Amino acid sequence: MNETIKLLQNHASIRVFQDKQLTEEQVNTIVKSAQMAPTSSFLQAYSIIGIRNKEIKEKLSVLAGNQAYVAKNGHFFVFCADFHRHTLGAQMEQYPKPLALESAEKFLIGAVDATLAAQNAVIAAESMGLGTVYIGGIRNNIEEVSELLQLPKYVTPIVGLAVGFPEQDPGTKPRLPMENVYHEDRYEQDQDVLKSQLTSYNETISAYYNIRTNGARKDRWTEQTTNMLAVEKRATLKEFLEKKGFLLK
Amino acid sequence: MNETIKLLQNHASIRVFQDKQLTEEQVNTIVKSAQMAPTSSFLQAYSIIGIRNKEIKEKLSVLAGNQAYVAKNGHFFVFCADFHRHTLGAQMEQYPKPLALESAEKFLIGAVDATLAAQNAVIAAESMGLGTVYIGGIRNNIEEVSELLQLPKYVTPIVGLAVGFPEQDPGTKPRLPMENVYHEDRYEQDQDVLKSQLTSYNETISAYYNIRTNGARKDRWTEQTTNMLAVEKRATLKEFLEKKGFLLK
Repeated sequence: MNETIKLLQNHASIRVFQDKQLTEEQVNTIVKSAQMAPTSSFLQAYSIIGIRNKEIKEKLSVLAGNQAYVAKNGHFFVFCADFHRHTLGAQMEQYPKPLALESAEKFLIGAVDATLAAQNAVIAAESMGLGTVYIGGIRNNIEEVSELLQLPKYVTPIVGLAVGFPEQDPGTKPRLPMENVYHEDRYEQDQDVLKSQLTSYNETISAYYNIRTNGARKDRWTEQTTNMLAVEKRATLKEFLEKKGFLLK
Repeated sequence: MNETIKLLQNHASIRVFQDKQLTEEQVNTIVKSAQMAPTSSFLQAYSIIGIRNKEIKEKLSVLAGNQAYVAKNGHFFVFCADFHRHTLGAQMEQYPKPLALESAEKFLIGAVDATLAAQNAVIAAESMGLGTVYIGGIRNNIEEVSELLQLPKYVTPIVGLAVGFPEQDPGTKPRLPMENVYHEDRYEQDQDVLKSQLTSYNETISAYYNIRTNGARKDRWTEQTTNMLAVEKRATLKEFLEKKGFLLK
């Protein structure tokens, strides 16, 4: 197993950071690594906002659901889907009509491009001994986040990412059995097979929580995910995306 | 610069592969690395279909726009957003109501989870000396691809990925200037600043094509992207996603 694969397979999110900022050089290395990620049709349909300003970080932290590590970290990034620069490009080319940006396909391209860049950023940061945690919470109040960061039309936040010097070592968390996630040639059709994989995973996860919390928790994975998905969350996203010019057709 | 960062920053897509299949062990290492990627709220809302069957690969290749490397590679993966397993989990928990899966938010979670896993797969593969190329073309005829892979409701293809033993060495392609992609504290508001960055990038890209093609091509980046985004593509995606139970609210 090479060093990079060890790094990938030892990933765990870090939620407690030292009170120490990343150097300019570290930020540059992370961003340049993010930029070299693959991108759909070379569109590079994403942008990254790096937050240094303490006040903006505090505001973001509140908007993201009062998660302390959004404010207390070494650097905070917001990865956005971005087709604003392509509209400027069309102006430069004197293209007389609006670009075709309104489809779900274009939104998906931007979301995928932003995520590919983000994951390269995570791996670059971790390879330098830094810790990371994604923040989906920046979508809790996405309109306010977008205003705070002054994002123009055709730019929308996808994920936040806190990076910093780790102050905890939580260890890896067991994933679903490989055969539940990876199917060959076609999706597994037998629901009983899939359910029995989930039953075995429930045991793994219960045991994991039981040990980690000294018996305080032993949730099943299916219990956790059912509770989480029973409730509507961030229900305003579609309306927000439509205002930004996305998902209209 | 450590080995992992070198790897990230030297990425280039590979579109010509030797006629040699990945070993079982290589596939396992790639999938296990993908599984350790971060995942939103530990939902693990994605699945991976690996294609070994030649006939299915050939069919996929036609559906994806007759790209040779979809059929000729060492292994082909389709990364899907997947909430099917969560509906099985809810049945196991005897939850009496349908889960709240219809929002744009849930689709985005699945798309992001699938992409995080995919990019870990890319990096794992490249660290083993393999080459990779993402295939957005699996969305050209997404309904047919979904039927071919027998994907149930709440499962949709996001990206394809061809992996194999490289038979070309195309070298890296220069990305947008860092300051055009990375903004601090807020999005750059000055359109002239952004446009002058794009003008300078146009020169970089024209020179790059000019050298690579011995003068046959010297497109500007803004020319390329304007042409590409002027036309509607994959216009059926929204309707397809709605049929799958996504983006309904």
